[in-house]
Amino acid sequence: MARWQPDARGRLAAAAFELFRERGFEQTTVTDIAARAGLDKRTFYRLFGDKREALFSGGEQLEAVLVKAVTETGAGPFEAVVAAFRLVADEIFADRLELVRMRQSIIASSAELQERELRKMSSLTAAVAAALRAKGLSATTAALATESGVTVFRVAYARWVAPDSDASLADLIAEVAAELRTITSAPG
Amino acid sequence: MARWQPDARGRLAAAAFELFRERGFEQTTVTDIAARAGLDKRTFYRLFGDKREALFSGGEQLEAVLVKAVTETGAGPFEAVVAAFRLVADEIFADRLELVRMRQSIIASSAELQERELRKMSSLTAAVAAALRAKGLSATTAALATESGVTVFRVAYARWVAPDSDASLADLIAEVAAELRTITSAPG
Repeated sequence: MARWQPDARGRLAAAAFELFRERGFEQTTVTDIAARAGLDKRTFYRLFGDKREALFSGGEQLEAVLVKAVTETGAGPFEAVVAAFRLVADEIFADRLELVRMRQSIIASSAELQERELRKMSSLTAAVAAALRAKGLSATTAALATESGVTVFRVAYARWVAPDSDASLADLIAEVAAELRTITSAPG
Repeated sequence: MARWQPDARGRLAAAAFELFRERGFEQTTVTDIAARAGLDKRTFYRLFGDKREALFSGGEQLEAVLVKAVTETGAGPFEAVVAAFRLVADEIFADRLELVRMRQSIIASSAELQERELRKMSSLTAAVAAALRAKGLSATTAALATESGVTVFRVAYARWVAPDSDASLADLIAEVAAELRTITSAPG
């Protein structure tokens, strides 16, 4: 553990995932997590509220990177959202496939966690759409580009975490975006 | 109230919406709803589980109409989903704008109801995607076509329930689908 300014939130999240992997989600207590991170329970509760929230610790970083990427690009709205997701695929997800698979299986085991995941995704979508509106796009265009980009990400992500997958998440996003273009292109 | 075979579920749902509109959601009790429908509380609880569930009573009909429509059409997957939503726009939503607006404002008032709405929409999406897979489409194509169609519906629906809207939901769906085609079409 680094001896300089500790990132308590990051250390607790990392400790939580280590323990969830070693012992399972239900068998891990907040006391265990705090001890592994070299911090106290009070700090955990202050930063996360509850044990389940540790599963969603990456959400703020994800949102910040996406919002920055769509804000700074000159690409069209849908391209901007797809490119932003390819960026987080490389920067945040690429080296964490096992962690992501474990997280998915924990979330799949609980209706409450699935609802929390949906709500987090809905809030992330709202933040990205707001960033597009701030660039002068209409509410409709911003919502369509964002939700279509999120759809591409979700479908690519589901393929990436599937047991038999070996493509990178960034490549899968590009592939799924191309397929979306094909199926939405005007008929005839 | 019809004297022949009563549709208890439909009567209770209609009574619930009448009372929600007259008194507000919080001020309406299950006893009130059952009395208005000429039924007893036990029947309400057997059919709905709780008061909130009365807000989601149309979900099964919506899902059944969508699944039937995408199953029976020969159109491409995205066109099929968009056409199915235009069908429910005409058959289920068209005459109910005030009811839908009231329902939206009740749901917007509670995080728990928003989560339930997201979960219901997620389950409806899964049913439509399964209907497309049953026609021989790949999981990726089925998911993309369904989620893109749901996006189009959600964006059109948000415009339809907005206070200053006067277009029909079916027309808005067609318009938003056309815009989705435009923004996802390959750049350059």
